[in-house]
This record gives sequence, C-alpha cells and structure tokens, in this order.
Amino acid sequence: MKKSMFMIIMMSIFLLPTAVFAAEEVTTADIQANLDTIWVLIAAFLVFFMQAGFAMVEAGFTRAKNASNIIMKNLMDFSIGSIIFFVFGFGLMFGDSMAGFIGTSGFFNPNTLDLGLNIPMEVFIIFQTVFAATAATIVSGAMAERTRFAAYILYSAVLTLIIYPVVGHWTWGGGWLSQLGFIDFAGSTVVHSVGGWAALVGAAIIGPRIGKYGKDGKVHAIPGHNIVLGALGVFILWFGWFGFNPGSELTADSALGGIAMTTNLSAATGAVVVMIITWLKYGKPDVSMSLNGVLGGLVAITAGTAAVSMWGAIAIGAVAGFVIVYGIEFIDKVLKVDDPVGAVGVHGLCGAVGTILVGLFAVDGGLFYGGGVKLLGVQTIGVIAVAAWTLGTSFILFKTVKATVGLRVDRQDEELGLDHGEHATQAYADFVLKI
Amino acid sequence: MKKSMFMIIMMSIFLLPTAVFAAEEVTTADIQANLDTIWVLIAAFLVFFMQAGFAMVEAGFTRAKNASNIIMKNLMDFSIGSIIFFVFGFGLMFGDSMAGFIGTSGFFNPNTLDLGLNIPMEVFIIFQTVFAATAATIVSGAMAERTRFAAYILYSAVLTLIIYPVVGHWTWGGGWLSQLGFIDFAGSTVVHSVGGWAALVGAAIIGPRIGKYGKDGKVHAIPGHNIVLGALGVFILWFGWFGFNPGSELTADSALGGIAMTTNLSAATGAVVVMIITWLKYGKPDVSMSLNGVLGGLVAITAGTAAVSMWGAIAIGAVAGFVIVYGIEFIDKVLKVDDPVGAVGVHGLCGAVGTILVGLFAVDGGLFYGGGVKLLGVQTIGVIAVAAWTLGTSFILFKTVKATVGLRVDRQDEELGLDHGEHATQAYADFVLKI
Amino acid sequence: MKKSMFMIIMMSIFLLPTAVFAAEEVTTADIQANLDTIWVLIAAFLVFFMQAGFAMVEAGFTRAKNASNIIMKNLMDFSIGSIIFFVFGFGLMFGDSMAGFIGTSGFFNPNTLDLGLNIPMEVFIIFQTVFAATAATIVSGAMAERTRFAAYILYSAVLTLIIYPVVGHWTWGGGWLSQLGFIDFAGSTVVHSVGGWAALVGAAIIGPRIGKYGKDGKVHAIPGHNIVLGALGVFILWFGWFGFNPGSELTADSALGGIAMTTNLSAATGAVVVMIITWLKYGKPDVSMSLNGVLGGLVAITAGTAAVSMWGAIAIGAVAGFVIVYGIEFIDKVLKVDDPVGAVGVHGLCGAVGTILVGLFAVDGGLFYGGGVKLLGVQTIGVIAVAAWTLGTSFILFKTVKATVGLRVDRQDEELGLDHGEHATQAYADFVLKI
Repeated sequence: MKKSMFMIIMMSIFLLPTAVFAAEEVTTADIQANLDTIWVLIAAFLVFFMQAGFAMVEAGFTRAKNASNIIMKNLMDFSIGSIIFFVFGFGLMFGDSMAGFIGTSGFFNPNTLDLGLNIPMEVFIIFQTVFAATAATIVSGAMAERTRFAAYILYSAVLTLIIYPVVGHWTWGGGWLSQLGFIDFAGSTVVHSVGGWAALVGAAIIGPRIGKYGKDGKVHAIPGHNIVLGALGVFILWFGWFGFNPGSELTADSALGGIAMTTNLSAATGAVVVMIITWLKYGKPDVSMSLNGVLGGLVAITAGTAAVSMWGAIAIGAVAGFVIVYGIEFIDKVLKVDDPVGAVGVHGLCGAVGTILVGLFAVDGGLFYGGGVKLLGVQTIGVIAVAAWTLGTSFILFKTVKATVGLRVDRQDEELGLDHGEHATQAYADFVLKI
Repeated sequence: MKKSMFMIIMMSIFLLPTAVFAAEEVTTADIQANLDTIWVLIAAFLVFFMQAGFAMVEAGFTRAKNASNIIMKNLMDFSIGSIIFFVFGFGLMFGDSMAGFIGTSGFFNPNTLDLGLNIPMEVFIIFQTVFAATAATIVSGAMAERTRFAAYILYSAVLTLIIYPVVGHWTWGGGWLSQLGFIDFAGSTVVHSVGGWAALVGAAIIGPRIGKYGKDGKVHAIPGHNIVLGALGVFILWFGWFGFNPGSELTADSALGGIAMTTNLSAATGAVVVMIITWLKYGKPDVSMSLNGVLGGLVAITAGTAAVSMWGAIAIGAVAGFVIVYGIEFIDKVLKVDDPVGAVGVHGLCGAVGTILVGLFAVDGGLFYGGGVKLLGVQTIGVIAVAAWTLGTSFILFKTVKATVGLRVDRQDEELGLDHGEHATQAYADFVLKI
Repeated sequence: MKKSMFMIIMMSIFLLPTAVFAAEEVTTADIQANLDTIWVLIAAFLVFFMQAGFAMVEAGFTRAKNASNIIMKNLMDFSIGSIIFFVFGFGLMFGDSMAGFIGTSGFFNPNTLDLGLNIPMEVFIIFQTVFAATAATIVSGAMAERTRFAAYILYSAVLTLIIYPVVGHWTWGGGWLSQLGFIDFAGSTVVHSVGGWAALVGAAIIGPRIGKYGKDGKVHAIPGHNIVLGALGVFILWFGWFGFNPGSELTADSALGGIAMTTNLSAATGAVVVMIITWLKYGKPDVSMSLNGVLGGLVAITAGTAAVSMWGAIAIGAVAGFVIVYGIEFIDKVLKVDDPVGAVGVHGLCGAVGTILVGLFAVDGGLFYGGGVKLLGVQTIGVIAVAAWTLGTSFILFKTVKATVGLRVDRQDEELGLDHGEHATQAYADFVLKI
C-alpha cells in the first residue's frame, strides 16, 4: 500500500507543472473500463455461484427422495434460462422501449445493442443473465417435491422469457417505473419478489404435498433431509450476494464498500433477530428459520443497499427477521400454502417489504430522513405493480401448464419420490434411508 | 455507473482541448483507489466464505447428532460478530490509541474514523469484520458437541468485542507490538493464535466429551460423521485464504503474486508432510490429519507470507506438518484436552510457530538471512504477549460463563445430541443413523 | 493480452525520450499491471477452487466406501503437484526451449525466468500451477475405487512433472504447436485431453471394478453415492471455469466478456442437449448425464472460447452434448473401459472435439467463416500429436507403476472399500450404509 501511495504522491509533485497529451485521456478511461469489466464479471461469477447455493438450500430443506429432482431443476432453469435470456429475454428487457413497457430490439444478438455503457455489452449480458436465472430458481423451492419436471421446464422458461424481462424493463431498462424514480438497486422487487409471487401462485395452484395438512386441520412440518447442506447453501448465497448487490453498481468506485457493508449487516441482523424471536417463541433457537433469516435480510436490503446507511441496514434486517418468522407462519398456517423452503416469505414478502422500506430509510429522499412521503409512495406503487403483473401472468401460466402438460406428478410418484418417478435415479444409493 | 460515465464524458469534453493536469492526476490516483477498493472487497468476500469452510470442517469432523448445532454456532458467531465489531470492536481496534493498548474512538459509526487509507473506510471495515469473525469461529470447533448454545453466544460475543480487538490494536491498530517491529502480516498470531488459545482454555475448562477418555486412561477417537464435507470445508478455507493473505496487502500491487505463492506452497507442503509422517507412523496415510496439515500450513504461513521466500514457505509448511501431527497428539494424549477438530493445534500451535519462524525466514531481517536475533526476539515477545493476554482473559471469560449461564449441556442432551437438546431439530431427518 | 502489451511497448518507445512523461507513463502502465495482477490472481483462485469441484464430483459419483480415498487423492495431487510444478514443471514448460519440444531452464526458482510478461512472474506461476494440477486430477476419477494410493501418488507426480509440461511447452511455452498456429486458448487439449487420454490408458490397464462387467457380457451401472454433492461439484467447476477461460486472457481487457459468455452458453447448451437426448433415448431426463453435459460443454469451449462467436459457442456446446451421451456409452459398452465418473468422455473426447471445432467455428480462420481448411488441419494435428504423446507416455508410466509399486488394491480391499484398506478410516461413521 505504501509504495503505491508514494508513487501517487510523487506523481502529483513532479507532474503537475508539465503538459500532457490527449492520448493519455483515452488510456486512463480505458483502464477504468477494464477495471469495471473485471469487477462486473467477477460479480457475475459470484451471482452465478448462487445457483449452487439455491440448489443446496432447496435440496437440503426437502426430502432425500426428491434431491436429484431438485438438483436437475436448478441445473435446467439456469441452463435453459441462459440460452433463452440471451436469445430473447435481454432484448425484451433492454431493447428499444415500446411505451416504457417492454423492449423490442436486440433479439438473437443482444451484443449488437448500444446501451451507452462503459463496459463491453457481453459483460453486461452475462451479468443480466445470472440475475434472470435467479428469479426462475426461486420458484422451484416453493413447488418442490410434487411438480412434474416437464411442467417445471415449461414455466421456468416462460418466466425467464417474458415475466421477468418485462419487470426488468420497467425498472432497469428505462421503463415507466424507473421514470417515476422507483429505487430497486439490485432487485428486491425486480428479481426476488417476481420469483416470490410466482412461487406463491404456483404453490397455491399445485396444492400442498401429501401429508402436509391433515384432515383434522393440523399442519405437519416435513423436515428437510440435510440441514448442513442447506446451511452450506445459505453461506454460498450470502457469498454470492456480495456480487449481486455491489456488482449492481456496474462500476468500480468508492460506493462499493458501503454497499457491501449494508448487505452484510442486514443479513447478520436478519439471522440474529430470527434467532431471538424463535428462542422466545418456541423456547429454543431455530436453526433453519435462522438460516432463512439470513436470506430474508439479504433480500430485504437488496433494493436499498446503496441508498441507506449502515444503521438503516440493521433496521431493515431486523424488520426482515420479523417478516420471516411471522410471514412464513402466515403463509403456512393461515393461507395454508405449502412452500417447503419458505421461498414466498423470503423472496416475496422480504422483497416487497425491503423495497418499501427504502421509502423510509433512504438517506436521500426517505421519510425518516426528511424526504417526505413521495419516495415511499413511488416504492409502494412499484411493489404493487410488480406484484400485480407477476401474480396475474403467473396465474395464467400455471393454469395453462396445469391444463396442458399437467402440473403435478401422480400420487405414487410423489410418495416414492420424484427421483424415482421423474428421473429413474436415487440421490443416495449407498445410504439406508427411512423412506 | 452513471457517476463514472459522467466523469469520463466530462473529461473528454473539458480536458481534451486544454492542458489541465490537476484533474488528470486525481483521476489516475482515483483509478488505483478504485482498483484497491475492488481488490480488498473481493478479498473480504473470500474471507467471508471461509465461514462456510469452518462450518463444513467443524460439522464434518464431529458427529451427526450435533451437526445442526455446529452450523448454528458458526452462523451466529459471524452474525453477532458482524454487528458487535461494527458497533464497538472496530473502534477498540483502530480508534485513537490509549497508550498503545486499546482504541478509544469510532464507536457506533466506525466509518467516521480517518485512518489515512487510500480505500474507503467501509471497505476496510468489512475486511476487518470478516477477520474478527474468524477468530471467534475457531473456538467453536474445540468446544464442539458439549457446549450450551447460550454460553457459546455469550463468549463468542465477548471474544469479538474485547479479546480480539485488543490484540488487533497492539499489532494492526498502531499499538505497542507494531511499534516494536512485530511482523504478523495477515494474522497467524492476531487471528489464529487468539482463536487457538481461547479454544484451549475453553476446551480444558469444559472438559472432554463423554467417552473420550476411558477410566482406564485410554484415549478413544470419536470419528467425524462426514469426511467429504470436512474436506470440502478445507478446500473452501484454502480458497478463502487467498483472500486472507493476499488481501491483507490492502492494495493491488506487484507483491500479491508472491504472497499467493507462499500461501499455496506452505499449505501444500503441510499436507504432504503430514501424509508422509502418518504413513510412516501408522502404516497408512491419514486423511483427516492430512486435511489438518493443509490448515496448519496455511495458519503458519499467514504471519510471514509477504516476508519469506517461496522456499521459506515450503520450510514453514513442513514445520507446520510436524506441529500438526505431534502437537495435536500432545494436546490429545498428554494434556488430555479434548479438541474434536484439532483447532488448538491448527490455530494455536501453528499460529505461534509460524509467527516465530518469521524471525528465521524473513528475507529482510530473519536470522537465516543474516538479520541476527532481533526480529526473532520481537516475534517471540509478540507470540508470548498475545498468548498471555488471550489465555488470561479467556480463562476469566469461560469461568464467568460457567458460573453464570453454565458452560455445558446436561448428560442426556450430550448423549442424544445437541441438535435435539438445544434446537429441537435433527440434521439428517431421512437417514438411518447409528446413534 | 497482445493489445495491451502492444500499447505498453508503443508507450515505452515513444514516450521514453520525454523526461517528465516517462514517470507518468510508467504509472499508467503500472496501474494496468496491477489490474492484470489481481485479475490473473483471482482467476487462479477460481481455478484452484475447481479442486473442490473435482473432489465433490468424483466422490459423489462413486461409492461411499471409497469417498475418503477420493478426497485424499484430490488433496494430494494438488499438493504434490503444486510443489513439483514449482520446482521442475514450470521450467520444463516455460524455460528456454530445446527445439520447441521442452523447456530447459528456471528449475528450483522459476520466478527468475524472464518471460516478458506484464504481470509479476509469481502471478503467472500460480496461475500455471493450478492449471497443471487440473490435468492430474482428471485421471483420479477414471481410476477411482480400485487404484492403490501409492500408485496414484506416483503416476500423478509424473504426470505433473513431465507429461503435462511437455504438452504445455508445445502450445503455451512457445513450442512447435504454437508456431504452427494451433489454437488452444485455455486448454481443451493441453489440460483436459491430456488428463482424459491418461485416464483412458490408466482405466484400461487397471481394468474394471469388480462387478462392473458381468460374465454374461452385461454392463452393470454402479450408482454414485451422493448426487447432490456431485451436483455441487459441477456447479463449483462451472464457477471455477470462469477463472479458467477468462483468466487465460492474462490481462484485464475488453475481450473478457465475450469469453465469459461463450463459456457459459456452451456449458448451458451441453446440459440442455444431454437432457433432451437422454429424455428421448431413455424416456426420462438423466440427472448425472446432464451434469456431465455441463462439463462436456465447458471442456469443449475451452480451446475456442476467445475465438468463436456466442452462437458458435452454442453449437460447440450442442456437439459436446452428443459426445457426452454417445461417447461415454461407447467407452462404457463398446470399449468396456470402466470409467466411474465419465472422465475420458468429458475431458478426453470433448477436449479433442472442442479443439477441432475451433477449425470450423473460429470467426478468424474457421472453415465456416471462410477461412478454409488450414486452421482445421492445424487443430487436428495438435489434437493427434497430444493424444499420441499422452497415450504413449502414460502407457509406459502405468505399465511401469503396475510392474513396480503395483496398480491395483487386492480384491478384499476393493470390496470393503479403499477407505478401510488404504486409510483405515470411513467417510460416514454415523450413517448406516447398504454396503
């Protein structure tokens, strides 16, 4: 550190009085562009790695007999999504805008679009690809352990093809929400709540797993088969989120440290608050709920990560902790929607709440910082509009899939496990399993 | 993104026709600062990811019935530690020094401190946060499988709040050890030996697990439940160490390659040496010991990673290999301190030995390079001072926790497993377990 | 790399005469060098992490009773390889060339070589080290579940010491293949096919696992013990490949985004094509084959990742999908070579095919882009030459090991598992296993 500081000081001393040339400016800008290139790429790689995190969380928190199926769904939504988003989705999201609603250019060769970025288009495309795939992945957890694989492939493709890019266009593609001043820095609403609302509709339409809700009205917990893997998944997601949030700055600048700090503090606070609530409420601190507390904190801070202070991030993480415990309970016990991994609570509710909280906690424009209710109003409009769009389109989507390909495996396949029924395999061939 | 784009456009417009250099110099320095920013952030993310490594190592090398508890402890020491270190610990470590012993400013808003860094304070804070959390995590492995969760939360918080920041202040916060010329580049002593000595005290005070030491004086090995996960953890730690050591340079410069190389060579040599020793000693090469050999090599090189040559790193790694085999055996069989994952040997002994070896192998000042015994003396003083501080304070800490909250679960909970007793859960619901 | 090197050279030539600017230019070039340093280091760290991926893939796709042995082999080929490549291998690969066949300088202290790079030698050495270790690791999967550990250590060391560095010298060290114009950007042939052909020879010489081929000529599938871990390994490898391919650019420039995109699209297409083929062929989409489809797509694109378009990458990934399904079937059922994880198909066949396809799809010089058959010819020559060298040398190697140390464990150890026989341990002490 000292050496480079010394050189910089030396430069200042010796070079100030003299004349430099135009070519120099180009080179300096080039280096910043190269710097931005590797920063955004590394962030994209971290976000890509979140796919491993989702796979481990979803597999770990469900039953052993469905683990290969979970893996295969995660693998395929990313793989199919990568191709579809490259060919169509990117153009729908970032192409020339039709009335602020949807993009209309750049299909098949999105790298030919000119978005005026200071990074090469391919860098931006891969960054956006890994984001798009995240939205699709969220749904798979909520509908785990009973969905036909063919149905999953179909609705996951449509989500990446249309539902997500439209919301993305509204917010990040220059569409109507961005023109209103809506703040969703890294996608609490655009990515997570889209996944969460689609998950809610899907889980509601497909119905609960066999044995989840007894005839007596009792709610049965169905424990996951590998909490250690689930925890590994949460750590991987936390790690990847450091690409998700700071990477969304799209340049290497001095704001990144604050973004990383707010991301980390919200996640940590979410975990601690859930631990405390469950300790008080159930008598013992709950492990898998606390892990979901991390994810809730991460999802909630994603919208405002660059807009709130570090103490604001702690507040947002704390709220997310409450949303996780009471929101998931509400979905599970009141709505009676069977969401095996809590995806609706984590991504839908925390995504929506976190986005709205930007209206309170944004240092620039938030209600608590003297900014009045304008931003709060815009944030609320954005959350509602995205919820309405996603609930509506995914309702049509899942109903159509149900009526055509069929949404649910038959009873026997569900009982024997989807690994057997859908893939003629087993995840743990050498282990003696209880089921 | 917009800001930097704006600056580039502004530069093109205003600077091309004229000879204005002040702005230009700022820009060049800015780019190095931006470069340093992303480098230190990426290093911090890698160090964060080590939490997943610790969780997998500690869970994998202990029994299935305690796996959820291990996970929960790892999750919570990082989460609670992140908040505590932000609010208090950073100020104690880097605030205005009181007699070189402890920092006294920057509480609640550490980003308001001015440390004269060329990176934003938030970047430095998150880098230091992930380091602080590492020290706390080390203890959890040594006291695994019998510690009350509430006790763990308490002592882990105190460690991050006081014990670690004081040592950090001595060495990295401008305190008395740094003034002596003590070299601990990335924390063999500051991070690892602090964790290791606290682990030793904790494991000694809480006593061995039921069944570890027979009434006949026999030592029973209690095998870990998942060597594959443990190995994954070691690979993750090795990966994360490339953030831990090279990241501690705190700037992107030409020294980083050498740091990465010494880190890797020491780890590799540690593993190979342990393999050879165990092969000769027991007749077969031992897998989990060799994995600990990696960790020993990594811990040992951490102090001198920027100060020694690549052959010096191989030598340090080789010494670490011996320390791992004979040190862990000494703790296990002679001291009869039950340390399920070998944390005292890995972090305490290898941390101390590695720090002292800098006095021999430092290219600049080491005894073997003609530097005399001065550096060796300073290194030894540092190691002893930190050991004394940590052993003393953690003795008081664990005795206090034992007398108040209670340190150990009751016999039945230990036998049934802490997952059941402390969290009312199980890690592997679908698997038939032997216990 | 060339572009920025060119700029740096141009700068040196034109700017040196002006006294004041020399320092300034050096500084600008320094920053790009620092940028390249962290980029190549981060890429090296990602490639290092692929070791965890290989370990999980190989352990997950084989049986529980051999899992510790698999882990130990992966740990040791990297550890021993790191040391050997540092001491000898690097010099053989990048030292002064003897007739374009092999390097002859830089042993023991490879950092004293001057390769005219714009990054410090240590950075280049660690990048090359993690590549060298990859080649060795590939073999371990193909010979899993029956190889003596001592034999593995021996042949793995020789591979890293001689077989791989010679091929590396031909292509990346300025040797005869590079002079022909052979394109293997990141090592489809240099790294993967070397590993794959050695794996083929080793697996053929050691013979199939007990029970793999029945006396009736029937081929029995031996299922892996943990598909979830195997999938985690694939995701880690995919993640690491973003270091492997873009990192091979060796500088931070505007080409990186395209490299990342072609890498991702080929992997995704490989997975999707395998899913479709297996679905049509077997009636159900196959999970572990689809995971291998990812790896096939990654291996195949590695040679041409910087040379082909994004649609070219999709085409190459699609071809890799076919190679995976039909190639692995051919090896398994026609050649009757027992390759437990499909390493020969993934790394050997896809590596060779991907390299040849550069001759068709290279935007600059490919047959499909009007470049005629010259490049196609050169690519084919390179693939054949490397195959011949590797098949020949590894045949001698494995026959020698077989005749001296012995290649295969005895029948009882194979049946009880190598964890027991070779390491006196077990990977899953708390689980009830079927075997």
